[in-house]
Amino acid sequence: MDGKSSSNTAGKPIRCRAVIARKPREPLVIEEVIVAAPKPREVRIKIICTSLCHSDINYWKLERSPAIFPRILGHEAIGVVESVGEGVHEVVEGDTVIPMFLPDCGECADCLSKKSNLCSKYPFHCTPWVGRDETSRFTDMNGETLYHFLFVSSFSEYTVVEVARVIKVDPAIPANRGCLLSCGVSTGVGAAWKAANVETGTTVAIFGLGAIGLAVAEGARLCGAKRIIGVDVNQDKFEIGKKFGVTDFVNPRNIGDKTVSQVIIEMTDGGADYCFECVGLTSLVHEAYAASRKGWGKTVILGVDQPEAMLTLSSFEVLHSGKSIMGSLFGGLKPKSDIPVLIKRCMDKELQLDAFVTHEVEFEDINKAFDLLLQGKSIRCVIWMKE
Amino acid sequence: MDGKSSSNTAGKPIRCRAVIARKPREPLVIEEVIVAAPKPREVRIKIICTSLCHSDINYWKLERSPAIFPRILGHEAIGVVESVGEGVHEVVEGDTVIPMFLPDCGECADCLSKKSNLCSKYPFHCTPWVGRDETSRFTDMNGETLYHFLFVSSFSEYTVVEVARVIKVDPAIPANRGCLLSCGVSTGVGAAWKAANVETGTTVAIFGLGAIGLAVAEGARLCGAKRIIGVDVNQDKFEIGKKFGVTDFVNPRNIGDKTVSQVIIEMTDGGADYCFECVGLTSLVHEAYAASRKGWGKTVILGVDQPEAMLTLSSFEVLHSGKSIMGSLFGGLKPKSDIPVLIKRCMDKELQLDAFVTHEVEFEDINKAFDLLLQGKSIRCVIWMKE
Repeated sequence: MDGKSSSNTAGKPIRCRAVIARKPREPLVIEEVIVAAPKPREVRIKIICTSLCHSDINYWKLERSPAIFPRILGHEAIGVVESVGEGVHEVVEGDTVIPMFLPDCGECADCLSKKSNLCSKYPFHCTPWVGRDETSRFTDMNGETLYHFLFVSSFSEYTVVEVARVIKVDPAIPANRGCLLSCGVSTGVGAAWKAANVETGTTVAIFGLGAIGLAVAEGARLCGAKRIIGVDVNQDKFEIGKKFGVTDFVNPRNIGDKTVSQVIIEMTDGGADYCFECVGLTSLVHEAYAASRKGWGKTVILGVDQPEAMLTLSSFEVLHSGKSIMGSLFGGLKPKSDIPVLIKRCMDKELQLDAFVTHEVEFEDINKAFDLLLQGKSIRCVIWMKE
Repeated sequence: MDGKSSSNTAGKPIRCRAVIARKPREPLVIEEVIVAAPKPREVRIKIICTSLCHSDINYWKLERSPAIFPRILGHEAIGVVESVGEGVHEVVEGDTVIPMFLPDCGECADCLSKKSNLCSKYPFHCTPWVGRDETSRFTDMNGETLYHFLFVSSFSEYTVVEVARVIKVDPAIPANRGCLLSCGVSTGVGAAWKAANVETGTTVAIFGLGAIGLAVAEGARLCGAKRIIGVDVNQDKFEIGKKFGVTDFVNPRNIGDKTVSQVIIEMTDGGADYCFECVGLTSLVHEAYAASRKGWGKTVILGVDQPEAMLTLSSFEVLHSGKSIMGSLFGGLKPKSDIPVLIKRCMDKELQLDAFVTHEVEFEDINKAFDLLLQGKSIRCVIWMKE
């Protein structure tokens, strides 16, 4: 597709390169695919770069529903609008955009409210389709349908996304920073900033220092937290965490008979003001809740456990502790209004995204990106499409 | 003690009348007791009137720990300072005061914070003593120790309370209104006002229309809630609820195969903005949580279930719903700063307390107050001491 201008392609299918996940855990291969023209209220995007998130790996490994194959994975990206479908007035050809798994229709009670980021018009679910129109825009060269992933499918030179999931951003943002704000990093930063609303001078405990946990640290640092305690079984994470504002570290393997919550309560003389569970283990949610300060402690759940996992708390403790617990999807951020704020804070050098990008590869080397994340060597690996 | 001035009694034991609960469920009898002089940082109060709360009845009926006998029950009251112990500078003889089960030491991190009402210096627990000094100030005429109840023991003409639990109030407040603010009514009003911070124009669902639930309605009405849905199995509660601002009523016995949460979600097109559990049944907490609006719904637990009751929520639902859940002791109110505000709003005719007082009796007729509450005939029965 190099050099092809959109005036040639608008309204027509585009033939381009994409990575197709054909079977669970099989190495990925770049193939040629056909990307259909956007239907009404859809946008076709030329991807500039995309980054790899754990959800991509989880759905590549998963052998049962909601996994489905053949599929084009990828959901953290930034790109340029190639063409728009009928009735799209929010963006035009040439706009720099971030495609987003979470919709923001701008019309429903949730999108109109400052308090919710859970669009009612486009409810969140794991569809393998482009979205509300339950069809695919991708076919392979044999005419076989390729499924979408999280409404984005960014491991392709071109993709089609519903306009409710397209955020217009300042084109001056470096692409390999902007793409991070499409999912994981925003989730963590948003959890501190929006969901928990961390106050200046407070203490934060973060359970799990993966990309999301580190992003919570960065968000808490931005909010003026005085003390940021990282909890991880990997000792190397302390040095890494320091770059993101982590001030103290607890390794559950190095605390003898004590529980993590006991250690945090001792360190903080009563518990952390805010606790974030970023692993996806309900048992850790219990520890996080226990480690939060009576009277005002807030626990925010960010990690995704198995669908059947149950959270069990003592009713008496909930009543008498004055603590609260909440979940947060995408850190409570409202995509269309909050992502541009994060972009600006990034360009103003307040929000520090550099340290998240530990690796960068060409599209052809996408398997290397998978290997690095699987081995725990990368936080974010950016995958560049050819110009 | 009639006509005895404090100048005669300060520093000395007082002989007066009190109701002693000698055995579980036995009718109460007024006896003469000795009330010792207040020790350092304690206050002796002449009770003007007291009201009966379900907790008094629960501890009168309970045959196992933490119940203990013989005991002087009662914990919602208003009175006048008769004398103070050493080091008390907050109140002086003659001050009108509300004794309070919840302390507010004014010194610890919690009492100094606007966010907590859980004093760290005087942690809440079910001690049978006057408080931190683990002794009693009551003895009967045979010299037997009588236990305190909830740090107040207001079913006595005189009682001794730690100064951290004594709130000085405007003496112009009618005593039979002021006493209500000592526990149940404040808990409900505070839950709407402080714990949930109900916003104007919102929808509230209240599970259980006892005194606390009705007080939540009154608090929600004061906060400007547009719609207040009461849930109770007693159909009569709808008419009663209307006096407190209840606009809609759901009787779980009249909704066929639907659950209460389904009904509320249909009524409100998605769920209530705030849900309050005021019964003390964990199963109802689950319904309340389910009935709260995705994206921003808040569930506040006020009811006290059995100590071993567990609250079990789907981890997936908590994560994806954006809802929060919290407990609240005393509605999140800070006794020394918030009770005077409620007193003022009552005197300004904003906070309507009249409808809570369904009955008033003389001290001698305290068993009638018990019968009325046991039979569900009273919301609050005020018990008057002789002048």
